[in-house]
Parts: sequence; structure tokens; C-alpha cells
Amino acid sequence: MTIKISIDCMGGDHGPSVTIPAAISFINREPDAELILVGLEDVIRAELKKHKAEAHPRLTVLHASEQITMDDPLEVALRRKKDSSMRVAIEQVKDGRTQASVSAGNTAALMAVSRYVLKTMAGVDRPAICSVLPNQKNGPTYMLDLGANVDCEPHHLHQFAIMGSVLVTAMEGIARPTIGLLNVGTEDIKGNEAVKLTAKLLQADHQRGALNFFGNVEGNDIFKGTTDIVVCDGFVGNVTLKSIEGLARFVKDVMTSEFKRNPLTMLGALIARGALKAISNRLNPSRYNGASLLGLRGLVFKSHGGADAYSFEWAIKRAYDAAKNDVLAHLSTMIADLMPREPVTQEVPSSTI
Amino acid sequence: MTIKISIDCMGGDHGPSVTIPAAISFINREPDAELILVGLEDVIRAELKKHKAEAHPRLTVLHASEQITMDDPLEVALRRKKDSSMRVAIEQVKDGRTQASVSAGNTAALMAVSRYVLKTMAGVDRPAICSVLPNQKNGPTYMLDLGANVDCEPHHLHQFAIMGSVLVTAMEGIARPTIGLLNVGTEDIKGNEAVKLTAKLLQADHQRGALNFFGNVEGNDIFKGTTDIVVCDGFVGNVTLKSIEGLARFVKDVMTSEFKRNPLTMLGALIARGALKAISNRLNPSRYNGASLLGLRGLVFKSHGGADAYSFEWAIKRAYDAAKNDVLAHLSTMIADLMPREPVTQEVPSSTI
Repeated sequence: MTIKISIDCMGGDHGPSVTIPAAISFINREPDAELILVGLEDVIRAELKKHKAEAHPRLTVLHASEQITMDDPLEVALRRKKDSSMRVAIEQVKDGRTQASVSAGNTAALMAVSRYVLKTMAGVDRPAICSVLPNQKNGPTYMLDLGANVDCEPHHLHQFAIMGSVLVTAMEGIARPTIGLLNVGTEDIKGNEAVKLTAKLLQADHQRGALNFFGNVEGNDIFKGTTDIVVCDGFVGNVTLKSIEGLARFVKDVMTSEFKRNPLTMLGALIARGALKAISNRLNPSRYNGASLLGLRGLVFKSHGGADAYSFEWAIKRAYDAAKNDVLAHLSTMIADLMPREPVTQEVPSSTI
Repeated sequence: MTIKISIDCMGGDHGPSVTIPAAISFINREPDAELILVGLEDVIRAELKKHKAEAHPRLTVLHASEQITMDDPLEVALRRKKDSSMRVAIEQVKDGRTQASVSAGNTAALMAVSRYVLKTMAGVDRPAICSVLPNQKNGPTYMLDLGANVDCEPHHLHQFAIMGSVLVTAMEGIARPTIGLLNVGTEDIKGNEAVKLTAKLLQADHQRGALNFFGNVEGNDIFKGTTDIVVCDGFVGNVTLKSIEGLARFVKDVMTSEFKRNPLTMLGALIARGALKAISNRLNPSRYNGASLLGLRGLVFKSHGGADAYSFEWAIKRAYDAAKNDVLAHLSTMIADLMPREPVTQEVPSSTI
């Protein structure tokens, strides 16, 4: 079966100079994939030509005259730039021409445009952003929400857990992935009211065998790999993710400066460069690039803005795997099965990041 | 002027084998300090003897028959173990026999016992835990609350900002330290309701010159050193801190295993060991050990449970500096000046970590 993916080629820090080589490399690796490359046609064709791929039968170029920048306010992304590469790429999913879309653009804009174009899945109150972090077990820890919802009610966190569980099953082939609820301690009495009530909802699911709820986890459990999934509200998730990224950058800068300090440390680094490369790969694995926007009526993946071609290719691969594993259908079924039937508490307006 | 500090010698992962050598080293460095060593007298005296310090004129031993373990529930710490080394050390502060207390024991117990024994400072609704993290500017970033208050109203966050500001002025000699409000983005429209309202309180303080409010900061700003102080609720702070610690451990483990992989990488590590040591020191500086429990009618400092003697000595030093700089008096004055006079919104019961 052919898997078709639309790519916002203009997004991210580097645009087509990264997205096009990534698309070419990916298409040569996956014989049943087709890609629609969305953006300024001239620029995309020039980049394709540079890589001698202008005539590739499974690469289609789709012109979009505008592009959303990292600084564009949401109203510009939503109302003014109606022909943006991001929006046109997502519209391909809506119109059934592709099964997933990938962008390295502005996260808030991507979520807003995706919600607007694709709409939210039945049974889901709020879409969430789910990303993957490396852990000490050499596996992935899926974490959500990472910033789409800054004020969450227990039923929102509950839905995030369900969506995360379905995603991990589809993507990793784990039948009953473990779910951890991010908290300030592991005991039931710990945490704020929203988290305590969420734990009760998840415990009920666990008892009837619907979900595999591990219980509360703490910040360090993300990297221990205590559970397959870590659930939190978007405020906590966003701050945690950015803190982690900040520390990672700090570590990298300190290592670079200390190893460059004098000829002896430079020699040490040279001799141990294999180890240094391995350290960098284990801590910042490119294969985990590609966050899912979960809970929409279509698959959208977000690459890091600063991704290089190798890393962006992994985001395309994640979108491809999600489409191939039919994550969307699984989500619909599981959500219909798991969502509480009784009316939920009154909805609080969501703030977007 | 003599500065007297009471030390819970039984707390932490290592107890007297760490706390006593740290106390001896500290007392030999600070001629105007006196320490009261609290805990099992026999054990403390044996450890003092081992280090030939049993007759030191500025070291006093005070017997306490019990000790609070890491697993003791709060009610045990509060109601059963009334002669715990932690409690007796804090009682010294209350009774004016010492100006500060230091413990490496259970954080939740330390906060609960401190609140119970010392009571909260006038004008402060809730004490907070403030710790110091290293940043890329080679300076400290003070962050609070780190877990004492999991549900915070804007006026609580406002008080944390005031207390953090006073602490940084007293400890670092910075006249008008910058205050950042931890959020999911820097724009005013970002964040949850509590954070947005807190920003308004802080902006008002800034406009009348009372505090130096920088604005919203994000997770990565902690390590960039964008502001001297980062304010957040205890849920976000605790999760962030533990995530950071988890990543730091992960980095350390990956570095150790990769450098031990083969003779070549081991040689590289051996040659670059100065750089590796420097990296470790910059990322996990012992001199930042010692979190402040702020907002109590007395100074209490919390050392990391796993601290070694060198690191525990820094926690004693922080307590000493705080006492010497009269942090408590500054806090009282500043809080009286800065706290809003109008009645605050209704108090929500606090959960302790």
C-alpha cells in the first residue's frame, strides 16, 4: 500500500536546504512512499535539481505562495496566510490526498492551523503534543502534553493518557504500554487536585483492564524509562521539555569549551571522539525527531525547527510509520472504547502556546 | 560577631560520616562560627574523635535520641519523633541558640517540622523552597518554589518572587536582582491564569521600582541565566528540578559507559580527565548545595541527601552566609514593604510534597 505524506518544505530554521535532501533520502529508502513537497515551487525545484531528483516519480511539487515564520502571531498564521506551505500541506491530509503531514515550522501555528483545518477527533476535547525522549533503558519515553494545553482538567489528562497509549502501541508494537502520571512524588496523596483526580480515572481504567496505569512518576522517571508514557499538562510538559533542552545545550557548550581548553584536552577529545559521538547520539537521538499532534482528524508531525536533513528524515519516517500502522483508526476505536460516556465537567477555554 | 548554626548530623544518605567531617572542615575555615552538632551523642563523639576534633572549642554536641528517615511519613516526623535530630536542630533556631539550621534529611519532613517549630513569617502565606542552579554565565540561577506548594494562587507566586529577590540581594550582593516568571512563552498572552495574574502583580511592583521584574522566561532560560531568579509553583518547580537531575544522571551514566567502552576511549578519557572533571564541576557545582526554606521565622537550609562532606560543607556555608547577611531581617522588612495591604483572595489549602 502506498503511503502518501505532504511536507511543509519551507518550515524550520533551514527550509528547503534541509527538507528537500531529507525527502529525497527518505523516498529512496521507502519504495512504497510518495511525498508531496509543498512550498515555493521555484525554490523546491531548484533544490531538487541540485540533488538530481527533479524527475523522481514519487516526488510531487505543490506550490504554496506564502510561508509562516517563527515569529508570526497565530492570527497571521490562521487568517492572513491562507496559502502558506504549512496550511497547504495540512489541507492535503484533510482532502485525503496524503495520510500525514510533516512540518518543522512554528509549533503553536502548526497546532492552530491543524486544529482549524482538520478539526478535533470525536471524543477528544483537546489535541495534545506528544514527543519522544531517550531513556536509560535505551528506549523511548513518550511524553504528552508538551504545550498545547496550559490549563488541564482531569478528563483532559485522562484523554492524553489514552492517546499516548494508542500511539505507543501502534508505533512501538507494545501491547499494553505503561502509563505514568507526572507528579511531585509517587504516593497517591501527592500532587495537585487535577493530578489526584486523574489518577482515579486511570486507576479505574487499569482495574477494568483498559489501560496499563503504572501510577505516579517523578521528573527523573522520564530518563529512567520507568514507564513508556509520561502524562502531564501542557504547562508542566512545556517547561520541563524546554528545561531539559536548556540543560542539554549547557552540557554540550561546557563539553565543547572544556575539551578545547588546551592541546592535552583536545588530544583527549580526539582520541575519544567515538565515545563523544556516541554520547551525543544517545542523548539527542535524531531517530526521535518528530512530535505527534494527537487528537486531530488527521496525522500531523512536528520536526524540531533546527533539525538537519538526517534528523528531518526521521520526522518523515515517524509520520510514515504512524500512517502505515494506522494510528488514526486505532485512536478512533480506542477513544470510542475508553472515553467516559457520562458528560464531562464544564469545559474551560484552552490557551494555546 | 559569632554565627551559630545547628546541624542535623543524622540526616542524609550518609549521616555523621559526612556531616561531621564537613562540620570540622567548616569550623576550621570560619573563625567566627560555632556549630551545635545534633544527633546520637555517642556516634557523633566517635566521629569527632576519629578526626581528632573531640575537644574543638567551637563544636558542641547536643544529644537527640531519634532520627527521621527518608521514608518516614509526615505524621511520624511531626508527632512521633519529637526528639529527632532534625527537630532538635530546628528548635535551636527557634530558641535563639543558633541563627540557622542545616539538614540533609527528607525535604518534606524538614519543611513540615520547620513550619511547625518555627512558624511562618508575618506577611507570608506559604514558605517556599529555593535552590540554586548553575547557568551558562557561570553564575547562579535561584529558583523557587521547588515543591513546598503544589497549588499556587498568584499572590503566593508573588510572595515567592519577593522572597527570592531578598535572598539573592543578601546572598549575592546584587542590589536589584532580575526576576523571571516561568512560563510556556515570553509573550504576555502566554500561560495559565495564575501565571498571567502573577505577571500583573510583578509588573506593578516593577513600575513603582520595588522589584526588578524581567517578565516571562522559559525552561531553557534557567540555564541561560536570563534572570537571577526564576519563580514557579511547587509542582512545576519540583518536576522541572527532578527532570533536570534525571537528565544530569543520564548524561553522567552515558559518559561513564561510553568512555569505558574500549582501551582507546579509556585513554582519551584519561588524557582529558581534567576537562571531564571541569565539566562535572561546572554542571553540578558543590558550592550550590543548600536549598533555603524561605518564609519561616528562622533560617533552615536543606542539603542534598546524597551530598559528600565537601558538598555538605557548602550547605553549612550557605546557612552561615545567610545568617551573616541577616537574610531573615531583610526578608521581614522587604515583605512588610512589598506585600499588598489589601486582603488577598481566599486561601486554598496547601498540599505538602
